[in-house]
Amino acid sequence: MKGHRIGRLTVIGVGLIGGSLGLALKEAGFVGEVVGCGRGKPNLEAALRLGIIDRYERDPQKAVLGADLVFLATPVRTLADLVREIAPALKDGAILTDGGSVKGSVLREVSPLVPAGVHFIAGHPIAGTENSGAEAAFSTLYQGKRCILTPNTQTDAGALEVVSAMWRAVGSEVICMPAEKHDRVLAAISHLPHMVAYSLVNAVGSYDHYEENILEYSAGGFRDFTRIASSDPTMWRDIALTNQVALLEMMDQFQLFFDELKEDIRKGDIDRLCEFFLRSKQLRDAIL
Amino acid sequence: MKGHRIGRLTVIGVGLIGGSLGLALKEAGFVGEVVGCGRGKPNLEAALRLGIIDRYERDPQKAVLGADLVFLATPVRTLADLVREIAPALKDGAILTDGGSVKGSVLREVSPLVPAGVHFIAGHPIAGTENSGAEAAFSTLYQGKRCILTPNTQTDAGALEVVSAMWRAVGSEVICMPAEKHDRVLAAISHLPHMVAYSLVNAVGSYDHYEENILEYSAGGFRDFTRIASSDPTMWRDIALTNQVALLEMMDQFQLFFDELKEDIRKGDIDRLCEFFLRSKQLRDAIL
Repeated sequence: MKGHRIGRLTVIGVGLIGGSLGLALKEAGFVGEVVGCGRGKPNLEAALRLGIIDRYERDPQKAVLGADLVFLATPVRTLADLVREIAPALKDGAILTDGGSVKGSVLREVSPLVPAGVHFIAGHPIAGTENSGAEAAFSTLYQGKRCILTPNTQTDAGALEVVSAMWRAVGSEVICMPAEKHDRVLAAISHLPHMVAYSLVNAVGSYDHYEENILEYSAGGFRDFTRIASSDPTMWRDIALTNQVALLEMMDQFQLFFDELKEDIRKGDIDRLCEFFLRSKQLRDAIL
Repeated sequence: MKGHRIGRLTVIGVGLIGGSLGLALKEAGFVGEVVGCGRGKPNLEAALRLGIIDRYERDPQKAVLGADLVFLATPVRTLADLVREIAPALKDGAILTDGGSVKGSVLREVSPLVPAGVHFIAGHPIAGTENSGAEAAFSTLYQGKRCILTPNTQTDAGALEVVSAMWRAVGSEVICMPAEKHDRVLAAISHLPHMVAYSLVNAVGSYDHYEENILEYSAGGFRDFTRIASSDPTMWRDIALTNQVALLEMMDQFQLFFDELKEDIRKGDIDRLCEFFLRSKQLRDAIL
């Protein structure tokens, strides 16, 4: 395994996120061996066939034996149970990291379960597609994307550097920030828009003034705008619950502005309406 | 002009909407001559060069002289003044139609100004792109799209048939409904989503808990979702004011569902959250 920065990598959850990381790290020559683990045997067989992993183990404890780095890519709410299970099998000096989209709850629940001598680095690659499973994985998923890591005062500097180097090796920019800030930023730019889209589709689809579903009239614009309302309900239930505090804060923030706009429309306040729309356009155009 | 369904068509406002109609009707052999009219000479020259119009007049009264059909493609709030101006110059039996995105206010304001012997058909082609001006026009804009016409008991059946045939000639499906229903449907599938997107961008861009603009962290998903918040502020100010009643009704409808979702998140109600997201996904997937 000489020359590789990581000798053995174990990926638990070989789907879009975990699979793409394995594939990209192999292509980059950053890892020696990639071991896969997950609930579905057909998915693991597919991962093997696609060259994402070199071998797999069904049992998480066996899968992490001798691993230098373990990447947890299963849903956020499964992480604590998973770490509880693999903890006794992790080798001394192993690095544990994850890709969960909420970080405060992960740190709170997982950190106490990590054995002495094992280093936990909480992370979140801001990347994804609408697809899932090993078949959806591709080696360029993380190129030009950001990966947020949320170290704290207990974090091992050497382990943080290895995980940072790993994400940079697959083409990502690594940003470190407190978990609390991560959760607010993600609530604002990702979780809130999903809540808004889900509410919008439900509101329009439930409007019953006419004897027909007025969603039937929706044109391309509405379909594009509400694409994210087709996301996996279970995943979003978990995100809404694990990032509850930050999400409710952002939903309140949204309502302040929506209420203001409604009031301006009700009053027919031309100047304020123009200002509201213009300010939004300028903010939006600045992030193009 | 034999063989053409419309001898002379005058388009007032030769931009994306008016220009594309002129171009498509010429390609379809539906019109003999297309006369353009508008405020900007460079735009009219471009329209001439692009073959959208055969000639132009800067003066609206001159432009409509001898026209069999006049298509008004200027902003909704300009229509009443425009019709007041051209009314004396319209020939007996001429048909007047528009493409404005709100219909109730147009019917209320324009109908009383239409001279006896001239037939007004209010319409709204549900098509568009982010671009504007004659240069943005293209002949296939209306293909496979819907055009809503909002006749009432005073509407001339012959004129309605000509305007319907015109929209069908450019590839659109023509749907007739009361203006009030049109305005509610559009408020739901177009105006409300714009209000939501504008509010979302303002809310996130104004969040000031950290010493930086957290919009900077937005990834592709947020950018796609908020694309419509880059739309023209003046146009949306006008739409918000002219479709005030229906839009406020839909904004209230949205808030009912957004509040319900917030309450479910606050309570951590797993079952209701899953149900809410699933229902939205099913409604959304049904309009794919």
